[in-house]
This record gives sequence, C-alpha cells and structure tokens, in this order.
Amino acid sequence: MVRKCDYMIREQMSQKLKMAEYAQLEPYQFRQLCRDAKHTSHTSGACEKYAQANLIVLPKEYANDFINLCLRNPVPCPLLCETPVGDPFTVDDSRYLQKGFDLRTDFPSYNIYENGELRLTKTDVMDEWSSNHIGFLIGCSHSFEHELCENGLIPRHLTLGRGVPVYKTTKNLDPAGVFINCTYVVSMRPYKPEDVPKVRKITSRFRKTHGEPIHWGYDGAERLGIPDLKRPDFGGQPVIHDNEIPVFWGCGVTPQLVVMQQKEKIRGPVISHTTGAMLTLDITSEHIKRLG
Amino acid sequence: MVRKCDYMIREQMSQKLKMAEYAQLEPYQFRQLCRDAKHTSHTSGACEKYAQANLIVLPKEYANDFINLCLRNPVPCPLLCETPVGDPFTVDDSRYLQKGFDLRTDFPSYNIYENGELRLTKTDVMDEWSSNHIGFLIGCSHSFEHELCENGLIPRHLTLGRGVPVYKTTKNLDPAGVFINCTYVVSMRPYKPEDVPKVRKITSRFRKTHGEPIHWGYDGAERLGIPDLKRPDFGGQPVIHDNEIPVFWGCGVTPQLVVMQQKEKIRGPVISHTTGAMLTLDITSEHIKRLG
Repeated sequence: MVRKCDYMIREQMSQKLKMAEYAQLEPYQFRQLCRDAKHTSHTSGACEKYAQANLIVLPKEYANDFINLCLRNPVPCPLLCETPVGDPFTVDDSRYLQKGFDLRTDFPSYNIYENGELRLTKTDVMDEWSSNHIGFLIGCSHSFEHELCENGLIPRHLTLGRGVPVYKTTKNLDPAGVFINCTYVVSMRPYKPEDVPKVRKITSRFRKTHGEPIHWGYDGAERLGIPDLKRPDFGGQPVIHDNEIPVFWGCGVTPQLVVMQQKEKIRGPVISHTTGAMLTLDITSEHIKRLG
Repeated sequence: MVRKCDYMIREQMSQKLKMAEYAQLEPYQFRQLCRDAKHTSHTSGACEKYAQANLIVLPKEYANDFINLCLRNPVPCPLLCETPVGDPFTVDDSRYLQKGFDLRTDFPSYNIYENGELRLTKTDVMDEWSSNHIGFLIGCSHSFEHELCENGLIPRHLTLGRGVPVYKTTKNLDPAGVFINCTYVVSMRPYKPEDVPKVRKITSRFRKTHGEPIHWGYDGAERLGIPDLKRPDFGGQPVIHDNEIPVFWGCGVTPQLVVMQQKEKIRGPVISHTTGAMLTLDITSEHIKRLG
C-alpha cells in the first residue's frame, strides 16, 4: 500500500515536472511532440499562454447539421474553424492555426467511433481521415486556466497534475438536423463560494472557449443531473475540499457524446481527440478572449 | 350563449379581414398605424413578406450582461441589433431598419416593468424611455410563418386569427452576469407528426428568428416542464387536433421572463413589447433567413 502510494506521488511529480517544461513551449513545438508520439496524454498547462482546441471529424454529409448545432449551442460547442473536405492541413480561419500542422497527428491521442461506439484509440488517424471527412475545431476551457492561475485561482487538477474532471449531464442541447436529444458535457473545477463571482467574471470574457460557468454548487450538480461527483465520466479524479463547491463549465467533449447519442443515424467513422488531450493553437489566450 | 358565440365569430372574422389587409402593407406603413395607435394588438400575418422583432429596453448598466446572455443563448434570444444609449431612433445594424422609426411608439403596445413586476401596459413609452436606456431587438418567429404558409403548413393561430400560444418552461438558459436561473419561453404551433420533418427543415434556415423547433410531441411538452397545454402563459388560446402534436420554438418573450426572474437585481424601469405585438422590420423574411 505504501509502495503504491509512493509510486503515485512519483508519477504525479514527474507529470508536473513535464508539464512545467511543456508550459514554456511554442504551440508548433508541442504539436511536433504529439506528432512524434512523445506526448500522448492530457494537455492541461501545455503552452500556457496559448489557447487549445477540441476536435470532431465527421463524414461531410453531417457537416451542415453539425455547424447548425454549434451555432445554436455556442456554450458547449463554440465552433472555432473547420477544414475543407478531406484536407487536414487547412482551416478556414488562420487566426487559430498558421504554422504547418496536420490534424491527423498533432493531437496527443484520438478516439475513433463507428455507429456511435468507441472502436479504438490511437496516437494518429493517418489511416482513418478519409477524403470524405471534415474536421471541426471547438474551443477548450484549458484556454482560460492560465488567466485563472494568474489571479490566484489555480484549478485543482493543475495542482494535482491530472486532467480536468468531465461529466455527462441531462441538460439538452437545442437540436439541429440529425442531432436530436443530445446532452451537455461539462468540466468541473472546485472553488470557494466567495471566489465564484471572480471566477465567473474572468472566464466570462472567453466566449470562444465556453465562457463563464453554467452552474455551480451541489444544487447545480443536481440540476445538471450528475448523480455522483466522485465518478467523472471522463478526465481526472476530482478532489473537492469541504470549504469548496463544484463549478461547471460547458465542455468540448459534448460533440463526442452527441455522436455516441446518434448511433443509428451517423454512418461511417467519426474521429475525435481523447478527453483532455487537446491541440495547442497558434492563437494566445489573450487574443482568443477578445474574439466575439 | 348563441349571441356570445356569434359575437366571437364576428370578432374573429373582422380580425382576419384586418390582417388580410395588413399583410400587404409596407413595414413603415404598418409602423405608422401603430404609432397612431390604430393597431394595438398582435401582429401575426402583418406585412407578410417581412420579418418582425421583439423588444427589450434595459438601463445601460445591464447591457453587457444582456448581450452576453443573447450570445450564449441564441435560440431563445437571437439578438438582431441595439440602439445607442437613450436613442430610440437609431440601431447599430441598418439591415433591419432603414426608414424613419421611433422604437417608443412603433410597437402596437408595450409592457413596463419595475423590480421584476409588470407595472402597466401602454401604446407608447414616450415618458418611460429615458436617456439611460438601451433598446435591443430580438428575432421573432412570425418571420418564418409566411414561408410555412407558402408550403401549405399554415400555423393554426393564423387560421383562427389569434396570437401564437406562448408558454413558460423549466429549461434553463446558460447564465450571463446578473442573469442567473433564467428559463426559456416557447411558442407552440400544432402539426401532424408526418409534417414535422418539413416544418423543421423550413424553419431551420431562420437562424436569426429562433430557427428550428427545440422540442415536439407531448413528451417534448413534458421535457419542457409545461404542465397544461390548454393554459398558455401568454398569447392566444391553442387548438390542437387529435391527429396533431404540439411543436415548440424558442420565443423572444424570454427576455421579459428573464427580467421578471431577476426581481431584486434589476433597478430602474424595463420596457418590452407585449406578447405577439411586434415591430415590423424593413428586412424581408427571405433576406433574414440568409443571415448567419
């Protein structure tokens, strides 16, 4: 038991040391690490002054409905940009990505879904991204964590060297085309109740990366239909102190849940990042927070 | 009893005749009728080829939070444009309104709220719109009714010469600043289940005027927390045939409910239109549906 504990602390320390180093990298350098499969896990704290993005890659016939879904539900699904059909080297808004990138390799790891079921997880999707696929980048709440830290509001999972805890909820998205009866996914960071107004204010400016929290408190968890905070559906294990409450933000894992919830409707493979393992963008957090 | 029935049918006929005449007017002509208090009730079917708008007028200190609320919840609150502080003659997007208008007089009727309570209803707000107020125009689902009619899907309330039935729901908006724990308001039009896909497709194109329905069916009513469809909270009395189901759209009455739900927080008078009694805009429905 003592040994296991020692091992866990060593793991945690080594993860935190690695992240301290990654925090200073330029986004294209960090993308190269992912491309070479030298980093294959979560990216909280990487390239700390830059924004990060979620990924969903859909067969082109679902693109219009998905764009509509994002425009109708910008809090869980803030759409940043998209690729042309079959082209993982280009996005339609160069504010987010400028230097050489390949969306098939530059995330630490990927999920591949078929008929709404997770088929496998890989560190690249060279074989899966077909000439029929369109990739969408969705804003990520990692993008406001540096500013929270600078204001003395360090998210707990960064202190612990873990990914942010992520939960499924019962809150419905407003439907769009084939995407019906979809529900929000949320990320959770614990804070003292007296810090919530400051946390809300800081994150409200990041409209393109989920903005301010959608619920907070244990009653908020109940309204979101989260049955047990100790059991997140994705991401790292939470630690909430007695003098803290959970605070919930819209989360870019939502599109993955959307795909899983449309089992019979979406034909052909769908690709996503794995929870917490994001793409580092060339846009700074300071810049992304000024975008409408 | 027969007399009352006769009277109601005559009223209904006269209302429908008036609307047939109003359907052909240019928006500025209809605004003049409202300015002169010659039309003071609902506007379903007026200037049939043009879009219509909801109104909310807030003290300027709540403007930023309200804009954020709209951007986060574009389905119930699709923000079209706003006025400068204290200026009801100007909006910041001339696609919607070009010809001489006065937002204090050009709606058929107005509600005035104080501390979240409806204080009075008037046909103009010349005395209430102060130098501290900002007006916001919100898209209205009347804007897609002409296209539904052209496709043989005439909304029931138009056949009946009534306003569209409108309901409060328990679905939460994503909060923004002072606007916390607010809920959606929805409009309802009954359709046959087999017509719902066509109704969804037609209205999905109108992103700036609530887009496609958010729920449908009696189970949809339940998910929205509507306890009794026979008792709408605003608008006209519904008639749903046995072979039809209710179909629900986000509704621009939502900001009024938001104001009522923030009793203690919003100081100073708030002005809105009355339910169903909208402003006719200079933009056609055909044009507004091409806007993102």
